Amino acid sequence: MRVGIVGGTGEIGEGMAMRLSRIMDVCVGSREVQKAHETCDTCLISAKERGINCSVEPGSNQQVVDESDLIILAIPFKHVESTIRGITGWEDKIVVSPVNPMERRDCFVYTPPTEGSAALFIQKILPSNTRICTAFNNIAGNRWRDIDSVLSYSVPVCGDDPDAKRIVMDLVDSISELKSFDAGPLSSSHIVESITPLLLNVARFNKMKDVGIRFV
Amino acid sequence: MRVGIVGGTGEIGEGMAMRLSRIMDVCVGSREVQKAHETCDTCLISAKERGINCSVEPGSNQQVVDESDLIILAIPFKHVESTIRGITGWEDKIVVSPVNPMERRDCFVYTPPTEGSAALFIQKILPSNTRICTAFNNIAGNRWRDIDSVLSYSVPVCGDDPDAKRIVMDLVDSISELKSFDAGPLSSSHIVESITPLLLNVARFNKMKDVGIRFV
Repeated sequence: MRVGIVGGTGEIGEGMAMRLSRIMDVCVGSREVQKAHETCDTCLISAKERGINCSVEPGSNQQVVDESDLIILAIPFKHVESTIRGITGWEDKIVVSPVNPMERRDCFVYTPPTEGSAALFIQKILPSNTRICTAFNNIAGNRWRDIDSVLSYSVPVCGDDPDAKRIVMDLVDSISELKSFDAGPLSSSHIVESITPLLLNVARFNKMKDVGIRFV
Repeated sequence: MRVGIVGGTGEIGEGMAMRLSRIMDVCVGSREVQKAHETCDTCLISAKERGINCSVEPGSNQQVVDESDLIILAIPFKHVESTIRGITGWEDKIVVSPVNPMERRDCFVYTPPTEGSAALFIQKILPSNTRICTAFNNIAGNRWRDIDSVLSYSVPVCGDDPDAKRIVMDLVDSISELKSFDAGPLSSSHIVESITPLLLNVARFNKMKDVGIRFV
């Protein structure tokens, strides 16, 4: 399976690319292909320094979708619609949304679209046979990028296609010490997405850093 | 400080009464005072069997509010409005809402009122100088009642009155190994409340029992 990361040059995208390219074939996409090249170089250098194999290819976001079986949308919510509408060929792909619509006001606030969640909005604008799951919503970008650190979080996965969900859960479980949990249908994604502004508030009000969750 | 539990004879209320009455003065309320007596007997017998002191008094829900500084609303959301409107004397009290509006359909679904959360609904119907916090939303009733088990969960606390929030956080931290976290203003309560149906779904879909959360 080849994993594509749309928006793979942002903080979370690059961290995901670094970690995933050591365990599977990864395609890193960006609106600016030069940036995708730089992220791939970062992945290759970091792996080489540690004597680890790494399989990563740069491309446009369109190439990432064309060449991958599973695509992670590592983009802020405000860019989701224009990015998705600028790409074709989503049919039958597994699409993973780690997207959390939120704003910083006095504190972080969950600001879903009228569909109820980023995931349901994405479902609405993608072809109906795209297989959408939410995953990786509650892991801080810093933690992805801190490549030698262990990620020991619980990762709720929502989705309506059982086979796609199983593949996404296996992907989650292949990364560091992440543990996937089936968190129900895609319509439950709003809860998972909203946990991120909660965690940012918990970090801020309790003087903590990069707070995540574990189901116990 | 005396803690009152309105609806203290349900599963969560009784479990809270058993645990809290061993560390502070507790007043257990019910619509049927006889039931409050039975819960107090359960607390006293359980503590006596273990050679532990226990301070617990039964009463009507009205007596609980009259005699307590801090009142926990251990009632289902559907009974919140009638219960609150049937009691007077809420002014200046600290009121803790562990209430999670939800329904069981194909899976558990968060069903907040139009105010956005149970906590904001409760704020609307209580006198404006009542000091409302959310806490204890994500701990299963079973776990409260399983009196010899350690509770080692994170407990997000939301509220707009800093002094009341500090008192509630100290209350949380006094119980077993619970750890309180300031989770922001009362308007963030919808996130905390919605985590409960998520945890119930995680338990169901992953064959687990009494799932809770920990911030890590």
